[in-house]
Amino acid sequence: MNDIEISQAAVMSPIQDIADQLDLNGDQIEPYGAVKAKIKLPVAGHPIDQSHLILVTSINPTPAGEGKSTVTVGLGDALKQIGKKTAIALREPSLGPVMGLKGGATGGGYAQVVPMEDINLHFTGDFHALTEAHDTLAALIDNHIQQGNELNLDPRQIIWKRVLDINDRALRQTVIGLGGRTSGVPRQDGFDITVASELMAILCLSRNLSDLKQRISQIVIGYTYDKQPVTVSDLKVAGALTVLLKDAIKPNLVQTLDHTPAIIHGGPFANIAHGCNSVLATETALKLADYVVTEGGFGADLGGEKFMDIKTPVLGKTPDAVVLVATVRALKYNGGVPKDQLETENLAALQAGVVNLHRHVRSMQQYGVPVVVAVNRFTSDTDQEIQFLIDDCRDTLGVNAFDTTVWAHGGQGATRLAEAVVQAADQPSTFKPLYEPQATLTDKMNAIVTKIYGGRKVVLEPKAARQLKTFAANGWDHLPVCMAKTQYSLSDDAKKLGAPADFDIHVRELVPKLGAGFIVALTGNVLTMPGLPKHPAALDMDITEDGTITGLF
Amino acid sequence: MNDIEISQAAVMSPIQDIADQLDLNGDQIEPYGAVKAKIKLPVAGHPIDQSHLILVTSINPTPAGEGKSTVTVGLGDALKQIGKKTAIALREPSLGPVMGLKGGATGGGYAQVVPMEDINLHFTGDFHALTEAHDTLAALIDNHIQQGNELNLDPRQIIWKRVLDINDRALRQTVIGLGGRTSGVPRQDGFDITVASELMAILCLSRNLSDLKQRISQIVIGYTYDKQPVTVSDLKVAGALTVLLKDAIKPNLVQTLDHTPAIIHGGPFANIAHGCNSVLATETALKLADYVVTEGGFGADLGGEKFMDIKTPVLGKTPDAVVLVATVRALKYNGGVPKDQLETENLAALQAGVVNLHRHVRSMQQYGVPVVVAVNRFTSDTDQEIQFLIDDCRDTLGVNAFDTTVWAHGGQGATRLAEAVVQAADQPSTFKPLYEPQATLTDKMNAIVTKIYGGRKVVLEPKAARQLKTFAANGWDHLPVCMAKTQYSLSDDAKKLGAPADFDIHVRELVPKLGAGFIVALTGNVLTMPGLPKHPAALDMDITEDGTITGLF
Repeated sequence: MNDIEISQAAVMSPIQDIADQLDLNGDQIEPYGAVKAKIKLPVAGHPIDQSHLILVTSINPTPAGEGKSTVTVGLGDALKQIGKKTAIALREPSLGPVMGLKGGATGGGYAQVVPMEDINLHFTGDFHALTEAHDTLAALIDNHIQQGNELNLDPRQIIWKRVLDINDRALRQTVIGLGGRTSGVPRQDGFDITVASELMAILCLSRNLSDLKQRISQIVIGYTYDKQPVTVSDLKVAGALTVLLKDAIKPNLVQTLDHTPAIIHGGPFANIAHGCNSVLATETALKLADYVVTEGGFGADLGGEKFMDIKTPVLGKTPDAVVLVATVRALKYNGGVPKDQLETENLAALQAGVVNLHRHVRSMQQYGVPVVVAVNRFTSDTDQEIQFLIDDCRDTLGVNAFDTTVWAHGGQGATRLAEAVVQAADQPSTFKPLYEPQATLTDKMNAIVTKIYGGRKVVLEPKAARQLKTFAANGWDHLPVCMAKTQYSLSDDAKKLGAPADFDIHVRELVPKLGAGFIVALTGNVLTMPGLPKHPAALDMDITEDGTITGLF
Repeated sequence: MNDIEISQAAVMSPIQDIADQLDLNGDQIEPYGAVKAKIKLPVAGHPIDQSHLILVTSINPTPAGEGKSTVTVGLGDALKQIGKKTAIALREPSLGPVMGLKGGATGGGYAQVVPMEDINLHFTGDFHALTEAHDTLAALIDNHIQQGNELNLDPRQIIWKRVLDINDRALRQTVIGLGGRTSGVPRQDGFDITVASELMAILCLSRNLSDLKQRISQIVIGYTYDKQPVTVSDLKVAGALTVLLKDAIKPNLVQTLDHTPAIIHGGPFANIAHGCNSVLATETALKLADYVVTEGGFGADLGGEKFMDIKTPVLGKTPDAVVLVATVRALKYNGGVPKDQLETENLAALQAGVVNLHRHVRSMQQYGVPVVVAVNRFTSDTDQEIQFLIDDCRDTLGVNAFDTTVWAHGGQGATRLAEAVVQAADQPSTFKPLYEPQATLTDKMNAIVTKIYGGRKVVLEPKAARQLKTFAANGWDHLPVCMAKTQYSLSDDAKKLGAPADFDIHVRELVPKLGAGFIVALTGNVLTMPGLPKHPAALDMDITEDGTITGLF
């Protein structure tokens, strides 16, 4: 059976039964049908430092597949099976990739969250509410210009683009406002995918409705003709935008195939944003469960670093253990094997590629958090290859690695991993941040480049260097940095696999995200609006009169 | 108290209690929180011809306000209060006007559907699902062109634009696909508001999922370089788009302030589309209740005519009575009184303006359906003015008119109206269609112009005349006509109030909507993407930490 067939064959528990596991009664949730619910805020529960937080991250993603979400779900199920009160906290999938190439983001095989179709489609409408709020702000900006432009906004310096939750390359660069004086002021514009919206990052970093409104009011939407930043507060629409997000801010509750509670909420890009599910989702899980498994986007260099340096200061709780997911296939790919030859045993390639794993493990260890490696087994992997990785992790890194078979066996495929994670997480916390909050933007970028990527230094291209001075003048130089870098390499060159050395990271532009509370550093060409492939997944989808969906994966 | 305060002070019944009134058990609905639900399909219930269908329509809308939705809700409550098993079937509001000028569409005063905030905001996500499906199709079209254009689509002849549920004039006319060869093929494009999407019309005319998919497959998205129509079926994505609408097709159940069941579903524009809630919503109400009150968009010339000629053939049930809503203020406005002087008694102006009411009553009477007039009372109306209208309706038209005070008194303000409606609806049906299905497009347009608008004839401008020949060649000349005309006048000139005579209707363009199953005839400048006003409603909205919303109306 494929993923959707396994999902459709599942017998789900009523959502109240799942809520009961977290001691949430009927007044504390809002059901969306029989098997989905929103959790009302604020959530009571126990102090979050009484719980254990496990961060799942991975090596650099490759076309070979790593299965980070699958391991996250399987580990959650395993922790529950060994008797721990567990909740999983995941991101919501974007519809763009679902209709395009990548498919959904609900795990796989017997380690899935369900209902898979609903979660991968509109779910409880959070992303649509974000799209609506984002584009309403854009319409209000253009309307402000049209109606007299009291704020003196320069139409050439609007940095608030529009968004859709769709892969649509034709909208990357547009001209709007054509058609004469009643149809707006012509200007260049463009669309991003909704997960790249600053509102998405804001929703995922907000602690409550008031904080959400405050952050929204701080968004810089553009500049005046005399180059002064203009914020949402100046436009006086933070209230309306918060109204549009009043339900989207509430975490969503679903379940795994094994009926483990899964809180799925928010999904910012891990390049242009910080790539983690919402602070409210993770906090809710921590308040209600004793072990919480969550994940960061892309590899440890992006989602892992940002979880540590951007999310945990807001969350107020650092991870008690990190699980680093690797696959034999992906490490062989890092070792130079082409995609169509990954099913052949190749220990030499594995040895060549394992350096990618080494660097990610060591970068996470710098935070003072115990690291455990999960080798997510594919059917073509040989016992020798798996054993090589386990031995290598022990001998080279001094960390435990575990053969994990959650796709085939669900939680039972991660029992030993779960036991090791519990042991690791029970150690007293010795968390050390990568950089001090008062460090300059340049120092922060250099810390990330040298300590996480293994590079030499950051190089600011002329535009970024000029911006650095302006940002300092605006008082924006104390914020965390959110690096927008390719996910495929530790460097800013997607083709450099393994563990490249002696490279610089080139920052071409800085983008203020004052609502989210960080400065984005753009390196290389970071695509914030994907395109559809030659044969989009949409072409293979169908639905019968009884509502059974095929072709969703 | 204003509308939102009255709404917030209401004590709503649990949605299952409302479902119980319609004999829907817990397995037949999907709750969305405590007071909203979707109704699962298919619905059992009794044959629809055992129920009574009441259509509420109105005179031409004016800035003075008519209160058609308010009367619809109040009449529903009144029917329930006099002991009838009643359901109301309404359209869903669009967020564009909510954030702009008009406000929501949930009735007013003590004749409202609740929860007002949720219904006016994202509700159960139907419009967002439509936006997503619509724009996914647009992305798939541009991707098809980008990836080799196997279908030979002419980028200059794509008629499938994009949509947002936002008033955003700057998106009316755009250029997309800029940025070089990896970012699409440059072409002119534009955005409509979501309620103008053909998908909205299709959703509201579909009888089930299979019919929805079949209709979607028939949508004409553009033409080849050699002018042949290209459909969604050619693109092979009807399945995926139907998947995106699998929940949006299910009718939504809420309640009035008096706990009468209200089925609110769909909301196509009444100019570019047919302006009625979904066939499935009305059918569901007819299956489950004995009296169903529903409404058409704008005045009887648009929403009323389209209900009769486009919706009822699909529904398979014609109205048993028509309620025509008028106000003293709006008729005085039709009689030439400026907006700021409507609160002064003016019987002469009323007499001058009542001709608008006359023509709408007579046009509805042509369908062979009994008509009752509801005079929706405003506080500034005098007894003399109300009595004038009641007497005039009796003497000039031979119809009963009733002083209706539902804003102030809810259902109790429409008891006599309800009794008259029951009496009217109990008469045997003598429905006569306006035109025969096999009539030509021109004959259909002429029937509407002469019998409904009171005009002389339809005049086809050169482009429309050319299209008529092409459409005949394509086999599209047997479809119903959907007139896209200003709602403010019976003519195609918004400034001609009252009951203009001796006018022609000028059709400048025809638009094939083969999925919806009608041909749109564009007269004058029909705006399918509204703009925001100088002071958008969004500027006055706010929300407190406990979720209480202000400024929504």
